[in-house]
Amino acid sequence: MEFELIATDPETGARAGLLHTAHGTIETPIFMPVGTVGSVKAVMQEQLKQDVKAQIILGNTYHLYLRPGTEILEKAGGLHKFNGWDKPILTDSGGYQVFSLSANRKLKEEGALFQSHIDGSRHLFTPESVMDIQRSIGADIVMAFDECTPYPCEYNDAKKSMEMTHRWLARCFQRFNETEPKYGYEQSLFPIVQGSTYKDLRIQSAEFAASMEADGNAIGGLSVGEPEQDMYEMCELVTGILPKTKPRYLMGVGTPWNILECIGLGVDMFDCVMPTRNGRNGMLFTTEGVINIKNKRWADDFSPIDAGLDGGSSNTYTKAYLRHLFAAQEILGLQLASLQNLSFYLHLVKEARKHIIAGDYGKWRREQMEIVKRRL
Amino acid sequence: MEFELIATDPETGARAGLLHTAHGTIETPIFMPVGTVGSVKAVMQEQLKQDVKAQIILGNTYHLYLRPGTEILEKAGGLHKFNGWDKPILTDSGGYQVFSLSANRKLKEEGALFQSHIDGSRHLFTPESVMDIQRSIGADIVMAFDECTPYPCEYNDAKKSMEMTHRWLARCFQRFNETEPKYGYEQSLFPIVQGSTYKDLRIQSAEFAASMEADGNAIGGLSVGEPEQDMYEMCELVTGILPKTKPRYLMGVGTPWNILECIGLGVDMFDCVMPTRNGRNGMLFTTEGVINIKNKRWADDFSPIDAGLDGGSSNTYTKAYLRHLFAAQEILGLQLASLQNLSFYLHLVKEARKHIIAGDYGKWRREQMEIVKRRL
Repeated sequence: MEFELIATDPETGARAGLLHTAHGTIETPIFMPVGTVGSVKAVMQEQLKQDVKAQIILGNTYHLYLRPGTEILEKAGGLHKFNGWDKPILTDSGGYQVFSLSANRKLKEEGALFQSHIDGSRHLFTPESVMDIQRSIGADIVMAFDECTPYPCEYNDAKKSMEMTHRWLARCFQRFNETEPKYGYEQSLFPIVQGSTYKDLRIQSAEFAASMEADGNAIGGLSVGEPEQDMYEMCELVTGILPKTKPRYLMGVGTPWNILECIGLGVDMFDCVMPTRNGRNGMLFTTEGVINIKNKRWADDFSPIDAGLDGGSSNTYTKAYLRHLFAAQEILGLQLASLQNLSFYLHLVKEARKHIIAGDYGKWRREQMEIVKRRL
Repeated sequence: MEFELIATDPETGARAGLLHTAHGTIETPIFMPVGTVGSVKAVMQEQLKQDVKAQIILGNTYHLYLRPGTEILEKAGGLHKFNGWDKPILTDSGGYQVFSLSANRKLKEEGALFQSHIDGSRHLFTPESVMDIQRSIGADIVMAFDECTPYPCEYNDAKKSMEMTHRWLARCFQRFNETEPKYGYEQSLFPIVQGSTYKDLRIQSAEFAASMEADGNAIGGLSVGEPEQDMYEMCELVTGILPKTKPRYLMGVGTPWNILECIGLGVDMFDCVMPTRNGRNGMLFTTEGVINIKNKRWADDFSPIDAGLDGGSSNTYTKAYLRHLFAAQEILGLQLASLQNLSFYLHLVKEARKHIIAGDYGKWRREQMEIVKRRL
C-alpha cells in the first residue's frame, strides 16, 4: 500500500492524497460506508459504486467472525469474493464491539473473553486471533485489536487501558508479520491511538503508534460521548505527531461538520454508521441542510430529495414520495434515505478534496459549515 | 387502449398479445409486480425496469386512498409522477382490501363502510367514489368495485354477492363514463367476474362482464383458498365466455405453476404478492426450482442465486451470500430475494410468450411444470 500526498491546504492542515491498494486507488480525504456484516445496510453493491461513488467500505471483524464465520469466508476466497465488492475494504478489529455489544465480556492480558450477542456462545479474542481472523477476511486494511475506553474515563483507567492496547499492538504486529495474506494480495495493518481525552496519554499513544512505522494510523476512542471540542483537540494533537507521509483514519466520526473540521486537522479517512442509521430513521443529510423527512411539511414537496447531488436516486425521487414511503413503512424508504445520506457524505469529501487541491479549503469550509448544520 | 392478438397456441388456449396503453406497450402474457402503496416492496423503480424487466405494476386504491391520499396524488399529477414509474400502472379497486384488512366493515347497497386499518378512521367506498379515486390516482387500467367472496361460500351468499357486484359494476361504468381522466391520457375500466366456485354463477357473471364491452376483463374471487382444480375449472369456464379480442386478467394468482396453467386457459395478465412476500421470507423461485435460502445447505454454495436468468443481481450475488444476509437479518437480503423472484416471474412469462409464438407452449409447459415445482 502506498500513500501519495497530492496537496496540503495552506490555511488548514487539510490534505488531499491517493491511497493505492491492491483493490484500487482511493482518493483522500474519504468517507467509508459501514458494511458491518458484509453489507452496507439497505444498499446494493452496484449502487454503492454507481450512485454513492464509494471507494472503500468497512467490514467488522466481530460480526463477520460470528456470521458467516471464517470458514465460509475462506471457502469463498475472502470477503471481497463473498460479498461481490471488488474495491478496497477495511476491517475494524472488533475491539469496540466486544465492549459495546457482547454480554459478560472479561478483559485479561491475554485478550477479551466474551459472549456472542447472537447466541450467548463464548469466545476469546486475542491480538493474535484477531490478526488471523482478519487474514481470513482478507480486507486491504486491517486494524489492531485495542480496548476503546468509554467517556468519561478516569485518568488511571485510561492510562492502564492504553498501556494494554500498546502491548496488544506489539503482539498484533508480531503476528501480522509472521503470517501471510491468504488471497495473493497485500494487507496493511493500522495501529490505533487511544488515551481518552488526556493530552499526555494521547501524545504517548500517538508516538507509540508512529514508532510502528505502519502503512497508516488510526485514531480511536473519540466520538464516544465527549464534547466536540475535546474530540477536535485530541485529534489535532495526534495528527501533529502521526507521520505526514501516511494516511490518518479517525474512527467512527461523524457528522458532516465533524468531518469538515477534522479534515482541516489533517485526517484522511472517516467511517460512521450515522448516514445509514440516521437515514433509516428519516434524518437526511443534504446539500441544503438537515431534513427530517417524516415531517408533514414534506408531504407535498415534489422537489428532488437532493438536487445538489449529481445523478442517482436523490435526483429522481421526490421528498414527498420519500416522506410517503416512511409514513407507509416501506422498505424502499430505507433504501432511498441510505442512498441519499451516503451519496451526500461522499459528495462532501469529494468537494472538500477539490478545495484542498484548489487551496481554498478554509474559505469553502466556513461557507459549508453553515449549510451542513442548517435544519430545514 | 388497444389489444393486439399476435398468436394463439394450437394445443392450449394460450395467447400472445400486445396491449397498447398511454404509458407504453405491454407484451402479454404478463406478470404485474404488486406495488401496494406505490412501491414494489424493497425494489427500486430503476431495478424494476432494468433487472426485473417489469412492464406494468399494480397499485392499490384502498392503500393509496388512505396514504398518501388523493389530494397529494392529484398535486403530484397522479401516481406515475408521484412514484416515478413512467410505464403502465393498474390499480385494484380496494374491494378486496376493505374486506380483508379493515376493521368493522359494513356492506350496504350503497357501498362499503369501513374503518382504516391504520388509524381506525371511518370511510365509505361506493362504486362512484372508487371510480373518482382511481381517476385521481391515474392508473392506465382501473378496476371495478366488487365484493370478493371468501372460500368456502354458500351458494346463496355467492349469488347475492355476485348480483350486488353486478349492480355496482353498472354504477362503476356509469360514473367512469361521466368523468374524464385528470392527467390527459386515457384510462380503461375492467369489470371483475365473480361467482365463487359455482359454475352457473361464473357463467352468468362472465356474460354480464362481457356485456359491458370493456377494454379488458378480470376474473376475481379465485386463489382465495379453493383447491387448485376448482380455480382452473372456473378460469377455463370464464375465459371461454369472455371476448377473445380483449385481455383477460386473473387477479391475485399465483404460483409459477398456477400461472403456466392459466396461461394455457387463455389468461393474459397476472398479479400476486407471492414473489415479493415469499421472497422476504427466504423462499426463492428460480429457473432450477424452489429454494429455501435460509437452509444451512446454501451456506457454502457460491454459485449465483440464479444463473438461468439473464443479467441482474441474481447472476452476480451468490446463494451463500444471500443465505448469510438472511441469517444476519440484513435488508439487502430482502432486496435481493425480491429481485430474484420478480425477475424469475417476468422471465417465466417471457419464455411462455416465446413458446406461444413458436407454437409449442403445451410441450414446453409440461417440461417447465416439473422444474418450477421442484424443491431444491
